[in-house]
Amino acid sequence: MKKPGRPDIPRKTIYRLSIYLRCLARLRENGIGTVSSEALAKAAGVKPTQLRKDLAYFGTFGTRGLGYEVAELTKKIADELGTSRFQPVILVGVGNLGLALLSYRGFEKEGFEIVATFDSDPRRKRDKEIKQPIFGMDALPQFIREHNVRMAILSVPATVAQEVANTLIDCGVMGILNFAPIVLSVPEDVMINNVNLAIELENLSYFIQG
Amino acid sequence: MKKPGRPDIPRKTIYRLSIYLRCLARLRENGIGTVSSEALAKAAGVKPTQLRKDLAYFGTFGTRGLGYEVAELTKKIADELGTSRFQPVILVGVGNLGLALLSYRGFEKEGFEIVATFDSDPRRKRDKEIKQPIFGMDALPQFIREHNVRMAILSVPATVAQEVANTLIDCGVMGILNFAPIVLSVPEDVMINNVNLAIELENLSYFIQG
Repeated sequence: MKKPGRPDIPRKTIYRLSIYLRCLARLRENGIGTVSSEALAKAAGVKPTQLRKDLAYFGTFGTRGLGYEVAELTKKIADELGTSRFQPVILVGVGNLGLALLSYRGFEKEGFEIVATFDSDPRRKRDKEIKQPIFGMDALPQFIREHNVRMAILSVPATVAQEVANTLIDCGVMGILNFAPIVLSVPEDVMINNVNLAIELENLSYFIQG
Repeated sequence: MKKPGRPDIPRKTIYRLSIYLRCLARLRENGIGTVSSEALAKAAGVKPTQLRKDLAYFGTFGTRGLGYEVAELTKKIADELGTSRFQPVILVGVGNLGLALLSYRGFEKEGFEIVATFDSDPRRKRDKEIKQPIFGMDALPQFIREHNVRMAILSVPATVAQEVANTLIDCGVMGILNFAPIVLSVPEDVMINNVNLAIELENLSYFIQG
């Protein structure tokens, strides 16, 4: 999917930008102001040539012999990824996996806040308390429009995932992190990232067979 | 990575086999005994030609006009994926994400049981109780050997992920589901599946920018 006015950056580069961002955050925490491409590449587990190529996609080149300013490169990558602004995210499907995801603090740390959750049975007694409100599915359209939500985490059962995805997209959601073990059909301008934890384990299981 | 004595099945096919398995499970729950390749493909969100090609990798062909026996195809795929046997899994790193993963019941449902957890600080007070024991890292080698563990979930901080992965691999672990935002260097016969939830969201964030 090409974005207007931006170079066509490969998806793997986008992933690596996220990894560089985490390495840079660690350098800042340790009070380090500049980093060579060799050192940053090593921390990220890539070759220096790969790092330089990835950063060149958006016109960032280190100064020869001086490397990169940690603060400046952090800002450039965050701007590029669109994470320097606050991004409200909703979570749909508050079952076991939904609850597990809500207890994961990594999202917030990275600038994403799950602002509300939705479930077909919002009043059902759950194993643990969550800080976000749980609304019924009928509240979804108005909430998305009023809060200008563009990203959703989908942790509903596979049987209803497509239907819920359709509703989300109709209301203006452009990116879905899908945990349902199903291939969603969506319009071309909507981005789906699929994560299925059991499938990842099953996939490993195949490869480790003797 | 080619497995001895088996055809070189593409990784995407292995993923789709997991999806077919879930569709078949739903058919069984609904008391359906046979399914056409068209119906199964539709449920899985793939083209019928893709389904037939995927199944042909391990010599399974439907009977023309009759389709596939649901029970038989389930067993064949589970055997192929290595999930028809019980697979003990350990989880290393009982922080927020580790706790979240332990509360996700999807692993067990799919035939994987997290039998034990390990952490550098096993006695630290945690937000919630878990049913598995938490051992110190020094107990890792003996446990892996005694219980013949071949799969591990790695949810430690990025700074120690490579070191912990090395220990796991030295002790005989062959597959790691890695949640640390770092690219691990491992021997060729070890399989790593990377899952980084914050990176998945960040990646979406890039693509939904206007």
